[in-house]
Amino acid sequence: MRIYDIIKNKRDGKVLSDEEIKFFIEGYTKGEIKDYQASALLMAIYLQGMNSKETAALTEYVAKSGEEVDLSGIKGIKVDKHSTGGVGDKTTFVVAPIVAACGVPVAKMSGRGLGYTGGTVDKMESIPNMRTSFTQEEFFKIVKDIGISLIGQSGNLAPADKKLYALRDVTATVENMSLIAASIMSKKIAAGSDAIVLDIKTGSGAFMKNIDDAIKLAKEMVSIGHHVGREVIGIITDMNIPLGFTIGNSIEVIEAINTLKGQGPKDLTEVSKVLATNMLYLAEKGTMEECAKMTDEAISSGRAFEKLVQMVKAQGGDVDVIMDTNKFEKAKITWKVKATKSGYISHMDTEDCGSASVILGAGRETVDSDIDFSAGIILKAKVGDYVEEGQVIAEFLTSSEDKLKAAENKFINSISWSEDKPLLKPLIYAKVSIEGIEIY
Amino acid sequence: MRIYDIIKNKRDGKVLSDEEIKFFIEGYTKGEIKDYQASALLMAIYLQGMNSKETAALTEYVAKSGEEVDLSGIKGIKVDKHSTGGVGDKTTFVVAPIVAACGVPVAKMSGRGLGYTGGTVDKMESIPNMRTSFTQEEFFKIVKDIGISLIGQSGNLAPADKKLYALRDVTATVENMSLIAASIMSKKIAAGSDAIVLDIKTGSGAFMKNIDDAIKLAKEMVSIGHHVGREVIGIITDMNIPLGFTIGNSIEVIEAINTLKGQGPKDLTEVSKVLATNMLYLAEKGTMEECAKMTDEAISSGRAFEKLVQMVKAQGGDVDVIMDTNKFEKAKITWKVKATKSGYISHMDTEDCGSASVILGAGRETVDSDIDFSAGIILKAKVGDYVEEGQVIAEFLTSSEDKLKAAENKFINSISWSEDKPLLKPLIYAKVSIEGIEIY
Repeated sequence: MRIYDIIKNKRDGKVLSDEEIKFFIEGYTKGEIKDYQASALLMAIYLQGMNSKETAALTEYVAKSGEEVDLSGIKGIKVDKHSTGGVGDKTTFVVAPIVAACGVPVAKMSGRGLGYTGGTVDKMESIPNMRTSFTQEEFFKIVKDIGISLIGQSGNLAPADKKLYALRDVTATVENMSLIAASIMSKKIAAGSDAIVLDIKTGSGAFMKNIDDAIKLAKEMVSIGHHVGREVIGIITDMNIPLGFTIGNSIEVIEAINTLKGQGPKDLTEVSKVLATNMLYLAEKGTMEECAKMTDEAISSGRAFEKLVQMVKAQGGDVDVIMDTNKFEKAKITWKVKATKSGYISHMDTEDCGSASVILGAGRETVDSDIDFSAGIILKAKVGDYVEEGQVIAEFLTSSEDKLKAAENKFINSISWSEDKPLLKPLIYAKVSIEGIEIY
Repeated sequence: MRIYDIIKNKRDGKVLSDEEIKFFIEGYTKGEIKDYQASALLMAIYLQGMNSKETAALTEYVAKSGEEVDLSGIKGIKVDKHSTGGVGDKTTFVVAPIVAACGVPVAKMSGRGLGYTGGTVDKMESIPNMRTSFTQEEFFKIVKDIGISLIGQSGNLAPADKKLYALRDVTATVENMSLIAASIMSKKIAAGSDAIVLDIKTGSGAFMKNIDDAIKLAKEMVSIGHHVGREVIGIITDMNIPLGFTIGNSIEVIEAINTLKGQGPKDLTEVSKVLATNMLYLAEKGTMEECAKMTDEAISSGRAFEKLVQMVKAQGGDVDVIMDTNKFEKAKITWKVKATKSGYISHMDTEDCGSASVILGAGRETVDSDIDFSAGIILKAKVGDYVEEGQVIAEFLTSSEDKLKAAENKFINSISWSEDKPLLKPLIYAKVSIEGIEIY
């Protein structure tokens, strides 16, 4: 077999065989296949497409390119959850404790933030002394002991994905549904869970700017799951408005804690409940109605919050700040952003809101940047709210005065105004599973 | 400007601007644009195509990527000739002296053989002491003195083409008309002639296996010429049968000499005359009829042969062998290949005939191979001839007995037989110029 012929076949619109895809991924991982051949093949894939079988094979061999976590030692159906990334998306901190409180083991690896979106691991590290890096033995022990652990991604999961993504990033071959789906799913499959609930964000603050693309991506990932024997549900949720009222790290953890106590914002609460319910359903805990009820009870009984406390304790984190969130370290500077006119907020470019938060120090401008855990944005108004000129619409938290102006410009420019109350978009658009699409 | 956006634009089917193509070729030549980005762009070009303006711009910037020969010091309209490569194609040795004998300066750079096709420079070097490498001053002086010089390609003509070709060769992006046309034309344009006659071979022994592709390629190259201000004519000629009766080096030179003396085989004579006539026409020597007459007279008067003799002398070659071709060094071994059955030869896979000759030592199996100048094949029968079983159909010339068997197998297997006399294909199919296509 020669990579030349594989490139030629895809160039000519042929379906690649399982063996050809295996040859490509294994050869590329080892460096035997060169970047210039891989990029030609990726462009041919981009333009000629891959069918669901090819996409699944690509995913599988990328998943197999490095370590694969074996969760079989942990009893029960392990259900993972993945978000395609958004702004103010702290659902993992709500969903994982709920599910664990209902007896479904959560052994979850999460990522860090990059670009305008935050990352679960960064947010976790805003809890003083909280560890996010463990040996596999330690990780499994925590899950066995208390039923939940959230850690950072281990060193060598799906290394082919890292290599391919870096290449796609500089050769204009990122925006292809098969390749995006394979990239996400390869890591999830290598992470070892039996079933996966995907939170596919769509809107101005998401990778998928429109709903059709989000549904296409969901279908691709559900199909991959079907081919490789993992049950997958995709929930399409709105990201035209930041989720909840906080964008940052410690302030997002605080908002998640409030939500676990039943005092969270409506949108975050609703999305978290839907995700948790579907995870419980995939874990075969009952019908959708029964799982929804379990979710509600996990919150109202305080068991979900208690699970979070157990996890923080088990991972070395300072439980004091969880019990009394006022004890989180405060940002040096609080700056009130005021409305520049009166009217309804009709639209927020949510990517720009995320970028404003990054400017304030809550995210990384480059891979090596340090994060200011107390920095970020607390929204005081969102799309659909009427505000008077001069009214405070957000509080900026930062340790660096220099950054306020640029962040404020970015934030103010992200907002559109209207005289009439705008129509609000649904928070949850659809659920995609192997049975089909259910529109909410 | 960023190469990323250029790749993205072509990926999305957009027309690249002159500036974008310039940026790509200049950046790639300097190594600032990486192979993996160039190969992604080439695949996007392969699949999305380029229009004639883009193709011309690509050609022009590739031509400008290195030295450009300035022939303006030589008086008159300089007309180049290029063959896309075939088997037994020794027309340059016939055509160039004819044209020079008619007063049109020939300052021509030729290539070496690779794969199953021979090269003019290798054939020239079968003449003892013949030099094919000169400084530009020496080269110009010979052309000024006697009106003709044929030399090897100088070091740094169109270096971007070499780099791009090597990359296309390993990324399955060779077979694209725009890229093929740009590659050929960039070198011809850098070589400095005012006008170019292209001999586009089609058939089993040519790069273009079918006529439609040959016509497409001709159109592309004529269009490039039009865009960059060089007059171009493309003659589509048959390569389903080796041209003439010899495949090799010295034996091809001998056949060319015979043809210049009016005693050559019919096919070689006809193709050479058509090419020479069109070159004279582009040099504005008269109407097509007048140019055809001049061509005939250059041969019949002996002036064309005399021009060859002058050139060999000027380039240090041994004129004795030209005057008496029996003096060429003989191959050690002559092997008679006999017909394996009685019947008409209905088809010869001409690429395989060329490969058989390479096996005998007449060509290079790898870039570094030495050539056995006296080796090759003298055909005793061609397509359309009736032969009896056991009748000699070819003589193999070689210095190595070991190679006979493999060459004979290759050659015998290249031949198809029929009971009925096969219909012969035309020798010349069409002429493509900016005015349109003229079918012969």
